[in-house]
Amino acid sequence: MDYMIGVDLGTTSTKAVLFDDQNKVVAQSNMGYDLYRDIPDMAEEDMEEIFVAFVNSIGSVIRKVDLSDGDKIAAVSFSSAMHSLIAFDEDWKPLTRVITWADTRAVDYSDKLKESGLGQEIYSKTGTPIHPMAPLSKLMWLKAEHPEIADKAAHYLGIKEFIFHRLFGANKMDISIASGTGLFNIFDLKWDKQALEVAGITEKQLPEPVSPYEYETKMLPKYAAVMGLLEDTPFVYGAGDGPLSNLGVDAVKPGVAAITIGTSGAIRVTSDKPVIDPKGRTFTYALDKDHWVVGGPVNNGGDVFRWARDNLFDAEKSTAALLGRDAYDLMTEIAARIPAGSDGLLFHPYLGGERAPIWDANARGSFFGLNHSHTRANMLRAVLEGITFNVYMVSLALEEVVGSLKSIQATGGFARSPLWRQMFADIFEQPVTVPQAFESGALAAVIMAQKALGKIDSIYEIANYIGDSNTYQPDPENFQAYRELAPIFIRLSRQLQTEYDNIARFQREHSR
Amino acid sequence: MDYMIGVDLGTTSTKAVLFDDQNKVVAQSNMGYDLYRDIPDMAEEDMEEIFVAFVNSIGSVIRKVDLSDGDKIAAVSFSSAMHSLIAFDEDWKPLTRVITWADTRAVDYSDKLKESGLGQEIYSKTGTPIHPMAPLSKLMWLKAEHPEIADKAAHYLGIKEFIFHRLFGANKMDISIASGTGLFNIFDLKWDKQALEVAGITEKQLPEPVSPYEYETKMLPKYAAVMGLLEDTPFVYGAGDGPLSNLGVDAVKPGVAAITIGTSGAIRVTSDKPVIDPKGRTFTYALDKDHWVVGGPVNNGGDVFRWARDNLFDAEKSTAALLGRDAYDLMTEIAARIPAGSDGLLFHPYLGGERAPIWDANARGSFFGLNHSHTRANMLRAVLEGITFNVYMVSLALEEVVGSLKSIQATGGFARSPLWRQMFADIFEQPVTVPQAFESGALAAVIMAQKALGKIDSIYEIANYIGDSNTYQPDPENFQAYRELAPIFIRLSRQLQTEYDNIARFQREHSR
Repeated sequence: MDYMIGVDLGTTSTKAVLFDDQNKVVAQSNMGYDLYRDIPDMAEEDMEEIFVAFVNSIGSVIRKVDLSDGDKIAAVSFSSAMHSLIAFDEDWKPLTRVITWADTRAVDYSDKLKESGLGQEIYSKTGTPIHPMAPLSKLMWLKAEHPEIADKAAHYLGIKEFIFHRLFGANKMDISIASGTGLFNIFDLKWDKQALEVAGITEKQLPEPVSPYEYETKMLPKYAAVMGLLEDTPFVYGAGDGPLSNLGVDAVKPGVAAITIGTSGAIRVTSDKPVIDPKGRTFTYALDKDHWVVGGPVNNGGDVFRWARDNLFDAEKSTAALLGRDAYDLMTEIAARIPAGSDGLLFHPYLGGERAPIWDANARGSFFGLNHSHTRANMLRAVLEGITFNVYMVSLALEEVVGSLKSIQATGGFARSPLWRQMFADIFEQPVTVPQAFESGALAAVIMAQKALGKIDSIYEIANYIGDSNTYQPDPENFQAYRELAPIFIRLSRQLQTEYDNIARFQREHSR
Repeated sequence: MDYMIGVDLGTTSTKAVLFDDQNKVVAQSNMGYDLYRDIPDMAEEDMEEIFVAFVNSIGSVIRKVDLSDGDKIAAVSFSSAMHSLIAFDEDWKPLTRVITWADTRAVDYSDKLKESGLGQEIYSKTGTPIHPMAPLSKLMWLKAEHPEIADKAAHYLGIKEFIFHRLFGANKMDISIASGTGLFNIFDLKWDKQALEVAGITEKQLPEPVSPYEYETKMLPKYAAVMGLLEDTPFVYGAGDGPLSNLGVDAVKPGVAAITIGTSGAIRVTSDKPVIDPKGRTFTYALDKDHWVVGGPVNNGGDVFRWARDNLFDAEKSTAALLGRDAYDLMTEIAARIPAGSDGLLFHPYLGGERAPIWDANARGSFFGLNHSHTRANMLRAVLEGITFNVYMVSLALEEVVGSLKSIQATGGFARSPLWRQMFADIFEQPVTVPQAFESGALAAVIMAQKALGKIDSIYEIANYIGDSNTYQPDPENFQAYRELAPIFIRLSRQLQTEYDNIARFQREHSR
């Protein structure tokens, strides 16, 4: 049997998933590492910790199958966190840890760039929002605040390119990861001269852009040995975790949106060409040169639900524990008793600032429309609806860029809640499908490997492997209520925005 | 000893308070009656129930003192709920129950009048906001929707005038009560021809306006007998409960504001002449021809605190019961642990629409500025601060009309809470005094009777009788925070107003 391994290089762990030749999960292994927040706004990883986790997770899944009888690992392929940056000197000695997407120390530089017209000009070529998450901003910050590093830096890689460099001595970056750097022209698929100039680097400091289907084979023997792999096992570059999560739920055809709500969330639609939002509200990242994922990341997802649990439903959290039940389940049951529209209570979920659709780090949360008959149950349903309305606002921006949405594939924690899935169907007025795609990121990486190795013709083959799915249809009674509330939510989000800077400043200056 | 009785004719009860010649309370009696809400927006009283309650409460306090030894009741005087209306036919048979200030069935007529320029023109002469509470609006509504009543109505009185008519056959209304009808010109102290025309009535359908110091003496013997009064006991007309409550806490000199927060609330400042807010945000009612009370009524006071108790602090309400403590006390203790400004969380308290300062029946409540670190304790303090900020907004409107406030006399339920008093001192940046004026309305009525009967020269004598008081000084550390937040609160209240009509419409159409 030919097995394949999909590797998910995440922000706080690496997961290796071993699939059989029917793309069924046979084994998986998850190894964690720290996210260093030594000082405010820092979010770094140690690349040696990542490498150890990577090697061990691969080794661990391989040891779970018997490869003695001609069975083999036919390929290893990758899904990787995007936007990370590591600086190396000319001898390939690291000058930094892994500066992750979550690191926001470059905010002053991205803000300045955004305010100048230059930001929009660069965004319109790179598809990456001008934001501290992007390597473009991080390079500006390094040059200004750590010239001792920037001056010595001969090479810059991300987390996945570092793995490939360590294993193969390669200096390449797939165009999917490249498309999230803020430095890569997504129309001519080359590093963008203007962006490089702004970042203060030259093209030779960056890896060579390659297809996600490219692969390496001649691994350093010592690493092959420790993982239990043959030295000529193909390592397929794969792509960024965002675009791959669309592939992983079969949301790669035009008009199909993938919505993920975990701690934070995102909505992404595939387009067959790179397209840009003239208003700068969305990102455009490559899956490969024929599939582009346009979307918006939202900060406020399950994290906000957690805030409601800990602060509004602390009593019920205790009750759930006494009942031996999950607090979120109990809360969902409570919210389900309130009609769609929460009896006219709205919630803007921006507890932690927001990226799409408003891109305002100072945004804050609000309840609006409270009357004497509203209870905590109304507030809870309003919280769930508010998270959903916000994603809906992003979808409206997406539709301006890529055209109408036709259906939604839902994943992440929220997809486990029937109430929430129905809410998405009702607010979006679209059928919502929840694929049983377990380990969809790793599966998508493996599908790319199969195409890379010529085993399949098209990545659309993934549709055969994502399992059964449940589809939720919009309920006319509910969507009628949401149709009336959505415009109020949207107009209010503009009205409220006028005071976000002021209240955030007060909160910072008076923080205890 | 010469006793006097102050009668407080309220919306759901009548209270008689018997004072000795040192103005100390000797006895009191409170008798309740129903407020009929047979259909939506109706709020009526039965005048026979009121009359019985009135007679019994007077009789009850008289029976508590010995009047055998030359002691006597030297006067009965009145504080009365304002804005009530009763229609009588030409034989003085009642055609309606008492339509109270709380009855809002006339809202369409007041709205229409307000939208036409005519509303502002009439307000600028009568001092009564164009609102369904006012007899002006009620008369328009009666004429349009109940012509069978309006056509037969030969006389209109309010609740207090009905009592005087029943006891003395009088057909008079003191200028204080008259100033709350919306029909009375507060500059020439006559019924306003234009307002009467709009109301569709003539002057002879209305009582004769008289001084609050006028009194009647020849009572019908049967009523004197049942109350235990001499037939020639002077009954002083007295005034409206709003203006008298200023007198009752010695807030009758320029620049002294009286703030009352009970279920709802009000802030009132005395002026020595009638003055009008060109923006129509305040009322101007007479105490007597030399004292005018300019102020704003707010709907959202203790009622909002109660909502927070029942909906956000239901768990603590149970805990308080187990502790044998008052839930509000426990909540106040919780709120006191949060710093001034609630860590940058704002609350607009309009759960039940609002009168002053925004005069918007569709206004609704909101929390603004929520972040991950905010707890229910922040929300609670924000509720208290929001109620206070709103009264502060009214005070800014008042200051435009009557000049700077110099100090605040506080009464009502909130005045019992040291936290809340301090909050008022800090937000207003004014000393807040809490007079020990128990039964201040009845005391003020009795002080007017003493002036009416020539026993004192000036109503300012009341200062000697309101007891000791506590004064709270603004705390610089706190008022600094509020100075930063107040402008945000005020600007937001304008931003939020743009969506009140829409959310209120949704709530009405989707009410369960």
